[in-house]
Formats: sequence, structure tokens, C-alpha cells
Amino acid sequence: MNTDASTKRPGGRSARVRAAVHSAAVALVSERGADQVTLPAVAERAGVNSSSLYRRWGTVAALLADIAKQRGDADAPPLVGDLRTDLENQAVWTLAELSRPGGIAFFRAEVAPDVDERRDGLRECLRRVSERFRSVLDTAREHGDATPPPPLEQVLDRIIAPLYFRVVFSIPGTDEAYVRELVSGLIGEPPLEP
Amino acid sequence: MNTDASTKRPGGRSARVRAAVHSAAVALVSERGADQVTLPAVAERAGVNSSSLYRRWGTVAALLADIAKQRGDADAPPLVGDLRTDLENQAVWTLAELSRPGGIAFFRAEVAPDVDERRDGLRECLRRVSERFRSVLDTAREHGDATPPPPLEQVLDRIIAPLYFRVVFSIPGTDEAYVRELVSGLIGEPPLEP
Repeated sequence: MNTDASTKRPGGRSARVRAAVHSAAVALVSERGADQVTLPAVAERAGVNSSSLYRRWGTVAALLADIAKQRGDADAPPLVGDLRTDLENQAVWTLAELSRPGGIAFFRAEVAPDVDERRDGLRECLRRVSERFRSVLDTAREHGDATPPPPLEQVLDRIIAPLYFRVVFSIPGTDEAYVRELVSGLIGEPPLEP
Repeated sequence: MNTDASTKRPGGRSARVRAAVHSAAVALVSERGADQVTLPAVAERAGVNSSSLYRRWGTVAALLADIAKQRGDADAPPLVGDLRTDLENQAVWTLAELSRPGGIAFFRAEVAPDVDERRDGLRECLRRVSERFRSVLDTAREHGDATPPPPLEQVLDRIIAPLYFRVVFSIPGTDEAYVRELVSGLIGEPPLEP
């Protein structure tokens, strides 16, 4: 988190401006695609002066990174302590994040142009998804599940990578049932109901 | 393949211009990143008039798509008819393509901005990689290998998706040994040497 006015005075003018700018940016990205959004357009939609956007964020990429950071994992489903359930829940949530309008646009903004900011964006993106699934694995380990959790690297390769790939390339059939298949492929089929 | 002059008169002026423009574009993308390349800059580097680039390709994205198409899989390693060897060879080649300067830039160009062309670029990118691995599976099937080949979908999920993900996110240790691990993860460990 940064320590600008919005953090120091929650609910203050600065926080209201930030919220208005964030939601204007999200709306414009959904409507036009990330590559067609400019800071002046965001400023106009948010009803604020574009000079304050240039001062505070500097570029659209930095603004999108700020949105991604602030959104964070706040609305991710809570962990229940069962490896399969948590992997499925977090993976379904990750898929939904990637799939909704704006979600993949943010991912694309992170993958695409603009050298240094892209590198930071990618690092942040990978860090977030890694943290989310590291918590799943740590929690399962603490609960002493029958199945020992796989290494994080395997979760990235076997669950996250296919989801990203399939969303980026719009491969059909990438849904909750498919997520459950990926999880079963990694940790085995669930026991049959009695 | 298109049917423009370069195809009708191989080695003609049009083909020479195309080759010069392609190599200028590849060099500029490597130096600056795909987002910093313009048609006039490519024209200048190639020593041709930029109006002919606008006429022939229209946009940088279309030019990059043409390069990707023309490059195609011409220099991919030949199939030997053994499932493991062919999966490993094609996957190592795919990884090298993605990893070299320009390679990931082209992938990024395909993933990133510009709506309709992006969609076409992604479709083409997925088609190419799918074709390459479909041939591997068909050849293994014809050779009647002991191990029946997995479905193409599994090859995409278990080998290609992790490679793309790891190159995009610059995850270290993504090398030939790692490719062999992915292949063994999918079709089983190779038999021990006697």
C-alpha cells in the first residue's frame, strides 16, 4: 500500500477522488479495451481535473496497477481448510476474475506494452496469485489433510497456467467443471459419495 | 499463405521488399519492444517508402501477424515418430521461439491491444501451436506406440500452457530439463536405461 492522503484520511476527499477515478477507469476499460483508455478520458468520466490524474498516477498503466492492487484479494472466498475445496474455490474465483469484462483487460494491461511498468505489473500479478495459493497449501498443511498438499509450483503449472492460457486464447469450456477437473488431475479424484 | 506478388514471383522485387521489411521489423521489435515500433520506423530501417508499408500491411499488428505467419513452423524440428521425443523436441522448440528476443514480443503483440486483429492473431497463434502438436499425436498414433497419445487438450494444458505462463511471467528454471519434466508428468517417466 502507498501512504498517500487516501490512506491517511480514509473517507476524505482524496479517497473519494480515488474511488471515482477507479470506477471511471474500470468502466472505460470494459467499454473500450485498455488500449483505448487515456487519462483525460478517465478524468472526464470521473468529473475530476486531468492534471490531478497526471500528478497522482502519471500513466494509464500505473492507474490500472493501482486498481489491481487496491482491489487485491479482498473479495476472494475464505479458506475452509480442506485442500480440494480451497483449491477449487480459489481457482474458480481466479477464473471469474480473469473472465469478467475488465479482468482479462487488466491482465492484458499487465502483460502488454510499456517495459518497466509491465515488468512490475507482471511481478505483482504473479506475486498475488502465488500468495493466494500459498495460503491454500499452508492451511491444508496445518490442518494435516490426508493428502499432503502439492508444491506451489505444481499448482501454478497445473491449475493457474491452463486457466490463464485458456482465458487469453478464449478456449471454450473453461468453467467451474473444468476447474474441478484440473484440481482432480493434480490431487486425485474425490472419494465417491457413499 | 496469401497469394500476393511475393508468392507468385518468388525472388522478385516484392519478395525482396517483404524480406527486408520483415527483418527490419524483427530487429526493431527486439531493440525497442513491439509497442514502440511504427510503420515509418520499419520503412526507414528497411530502406523502403513508408507508403508501400501502409498499402501492403496497414498496421504494425498486421505486419507482425504476417511475419509470424510466414515464419510459421518452417524451422521446427522434424518428427521422428516417438511420442516422448517428439513432444520434447516440439516443446523445446516452442519454448525457444517464445523465449528469444522478438518471440515473446510477437506473442505479446498477439495477446495485447487492438481488438479484431488481436482476436485474429490469437486464433492464428493457437491454431499454429495446436497443429504442431496434433501432428505429434497423429504420428505417434500411426506408429502404434506402446503408450497411447494423450488428447491434444491435455498437451495444451500440461505442456504449452505452463510454458507460455512461465515465459510471460519470467519464471526462472524454464529450460529443456523443465520441458522434459512436463512431458514426463503427462506421459509418465521414461524407462530406466539398462
